[in-house]
Amino acid sequence: METTIMTATKVHNFSAGPSILPQEVLQKAAEACTNFAGTNLSLLEVSHRSKEVVAMADNATALVKELLDLPNDYDVVFLQGGASTQFLMVPFNLLKSKAAYVNTGAWSTKAIKEAKGMGTTEVIASSEDDNFTYIPKGYTIPADTDYLHITSNNTIYGTQYQNFPESNIPLVVDMSSDIFSRQFNPNQFSLIYAGAQKNMGPAGVTLAIIKKGVLGKTERKIPTMLNYQTHIDKESMFNTPPVFAMYVSMLTMEWLKNNGGVAWVEARNKQKADMLYGELDSNPLFVTTVKPEDRSRMNATFLLKDNSLEEEFNKLVKEANISGLKGHRSVGGYRASMYNALPPESVQVLVDVMKEFGRKFG
Amino acid sequence: METTIMTATKVHNFSAGPSILPQEVLQKAAEACTNFAGTNLSLLEVSHRSKEVVAMADNATALVKELLDLPNDYDVVFLQGGASTQFLMVPFNLLKSKAAYVNTGAWSTKAIKEAKGMGTTEVIASSEDDNFTYIPKGYTIPADTDYLHITSNNTIYGTQYQNFPESNIPLVVDMSSDIFSRQFNPNQFSLIYAGAQKNMGPAGVTLAIIKKGVLGKTERKIPTMLNYQTHIDKESMFNTPPVFAMYVSMLTMEWLKNNGGVAWVEARNKQKADMLYGELDSNPLFVTTVKPEDRSRMNATFLLKDNSLEEEFNKLVKEANISGLKGHRSVGGYRASMYNALPPESVQVLVDVMKEFGRKFG
Repeated sequence: METTIMTATKVHNFSAGPSILPQEVLQKAAEACTNFAGTNLSLLEVSHRSKEVVAMADNATALVKELLDLPNDYDVVFLQGGASTQFLMVPFNLLKSKAAYVNTGAWSTKAIKEAKGMGTTEVIASSEDDNFTYIPKGYTIPADTDYLHITSNNTIYGTQYQNFPESNIPLVVDMSSDIFSRQFNPNQFSLIYAGAQKNMGPAGVTLAIIKKGVLGKTERKIPTMLNYQTHIDKESMFNTPPVFAMYVSMLTMEWLKNNGGVAWVEARNKQKADMLYGELDSNPLFVTTVKPEDRSRMNATFLLKDNSLEEEFNKLVKEANISGLKGHRSVGGYRASMYNALPPESVQVLVDVMKEFGRKFG
Repeated sequence: METTIMTATKVHNFSAGPSILPQEVLQKAAEACTNFAGTNLSLLEVSHRSKEVVAMADNATALVKELLDLPNDYDVVFLQGGASTQFLMVPFNLLKSKAAYVNTGAWSTKAIKEAKGMGTTEVIASSEDDNFTYIPKGYTIPADTDYLHITSNNTIYGTQYQNFPESNIPLVVDMSSDIFSRQFNPNQFSLIYAGAQKNMGPAGVTLAIIKKGVLGKTERKIPTMLNYQTHIDKESMFNTPPVFAMYVSMLTMEWLKNNGGVAWVEARNKQKADMLYGELDSNPLFVTTVKPEDRSRMNATFLLKDNSLEEEFNKLVKEANISGLKGHRSVGGYRASMYNALPPESVQVLVDVMKEFGRKFG
C-alpha cells in the first residue's frame, strides 16, 4: 500500500523532531490548504465547528483508539503546548500528596522540575550517574505515591524502555517520541501523553489519553485550560483547537492504519534499527554509548572513534542527501532518528555511507 | 498588489474564526507542505532549530513589530493554547494584589473567571445589563489595581472599542479578533495578546506582546510554560513551537505589509463596514441590536425583523455562495465577519443579496 518516491532530489530525513512524515500525508496536507473536504475553502479558514472539521476531529480520536486498541475506559483529547505543558498539567491534575519520577534525561528532568513546583516529588531512580546511557531497573516504587512518571524514549541520549515498570501505582508516561511506533498494553497506564511531532504528525498538537476515574482527586483548584476534564467534556473543542495539526495527525494515523497499523510499523522499525545498530556494532570507525539492551529504535546515537574524520564523514553524509543527522546540541556526536515514516531505504542509504566511510578510512 | 481570484466556485467566507485568509497565503502554505524554502522537505517535517525555520520565526517577530510600529521596549512571543490560555497566564504573571476587568461579553467573562481563580478580581464595568450590546464608558479605574483587562472586540455580540480607556494603570488587552485591523498607539498597553485565527493566521498559534518591566512583580511561583519570561528569553523556541501556524501567520503579515500595512487595511475595513451597516440601516427587513457608536467593523450582528422569512433569506445567501453567516450558537441570528482578508467584493455580494431580499419581501 505504501508508495515510496525515490528521486534524484530525495532527501533522507533523519531529523529528531519535527520529523519525517509520509509523502502521501504531505500531499494531502497541501491539498487541504486550498480545498478542504470539497468545501472550496482552505482548512486554514473554516470554522472548527463546521461539520467537516468536527467529523475530522472525531475521526482523529477514533483512529487513536483503534490504533492503540484502547479499552472503553480511556478518554482521548487533543491539546496544545507540547509535552512541556503536560509536564505541569500532570502534577496539576494528579499530584495530591506525593509524586514519583524516574529520571532518564533532559525531558524527565524538565517534568520533575514542574512537579516539584507543585508538591512533594521524589526521584526514585535515575541514570544520571552514567550520563543517561541506560534505563534504570529494579527500583522500588513507594506505595504511598499518587503516580509514577516515566519517559518511554529519550530522544537526546537514545534510550528506550523495553519493558514498563509494573506496580499498583498509577503509571504516567511521556510517549512523545515513540507512541504509535510499537505495540503496548494500554491498561498499564493511567495517563499517556505525547507531543505530535515525531510519529503522530506535525508540531502544534499534543495527544493525551486519560483513564477514567483518575481525575478530580487532588482538591486543587485547576485553571480551566489546564484541567483535562475541560477538554474531555468538550471533546477537544472547549476552545479553537489546532485544526491543521490535528488534520495532518489524522492523515498520518490513516496512513499507519492503511499500511497495517502498529504491528506493521513495529516490525518495520525493528528492521530499520537492526540494520543501523548492526552496522554501528561491526564498523570499527563508530562508537555507541547506550547500553545495548536499552537502545532506542527511534533515535540511534553514535560517535566517531576518531574525531579528526568528522569532516570526511559529514561530506559523505551530505553527498547522499542525508539530513538531520547532527546530535542534540547538548550532547554532540550523531543521532539517526528513524521514526515511523522513515523508509527502510533511507536507513540503507545511511548504512551504505557508513560502509563506504569504513572502506575509505578504516 | 492584491490579486483577487473570482471564479464560479468562489466562496464568500464570512466565518467568525477560524476565518478567511488571503488566497496567495493559502497557495504559499500549500507549497510549503511539500517543499519549504527550497529544502526539498516539507515545513511539517523539518527541525524548528533549522536555519530556515529560525529565519522564518525571526521574520514573523519582525513583522509584528513593524506592522504595529512597536517601540523597542516591547517583547513579542508566539505561544500556544489560544486566548483561553492567556486568560490564565495574564493573572499568573501580573496579578499581585488586585485586578480590574471590564466585562463586554463571553470572552471577558471567561477571562474574569480565570483571574478570580488566582486572586482578587473586580469587575469595574459591564454591559451585561443590556445583553452586551454596548461598550461601557465613563467608569472609574481604582488606583490600587495591578492592571485593567479589556477585550477590544467582541465577536459574538459585535461590539468594539473605538477608544481605549486612559489611565496610569497597566492596560491589558485581548485583541484576538481585531489585531492588525486598525491602527492604535501601542504605548497605551502593557500587554497585548491575540489568538491568531482571525486577522493573523490559522488556529494554533497565539501572539503576546509584553512591555519590558511589567513581569516579575507578583512573587508567585509560575510554571515554566506559563511564564512569559520563559518564552521571551528563548525567543519563542523554549520548546517546539507551532511551526506551520507561525509560518502562515508570517505569510499573512507579509501580505498585509505588501499591500500597504495596517493603514491600508483599516481604510478597507472601514469601507466594508460602512457598506454593510449602510444596508442594514436602510433595509427595513433587518434589525441591528448594537449601539451604533460601538459597532464592530469586524463582526456585524443582525436579525431578521420577521423570523418567518428566515428560510427565504438563507436560500438567497446560499445561492450567492456566502458561507459562515450564522450567528454564534449562544445568541442566534446572523453575523457577518469581515476580517482583513475578506475582499470588499464579498461584502458587496452580501449587500446585493440583502437588497434582492428587500425587493422580494419588503
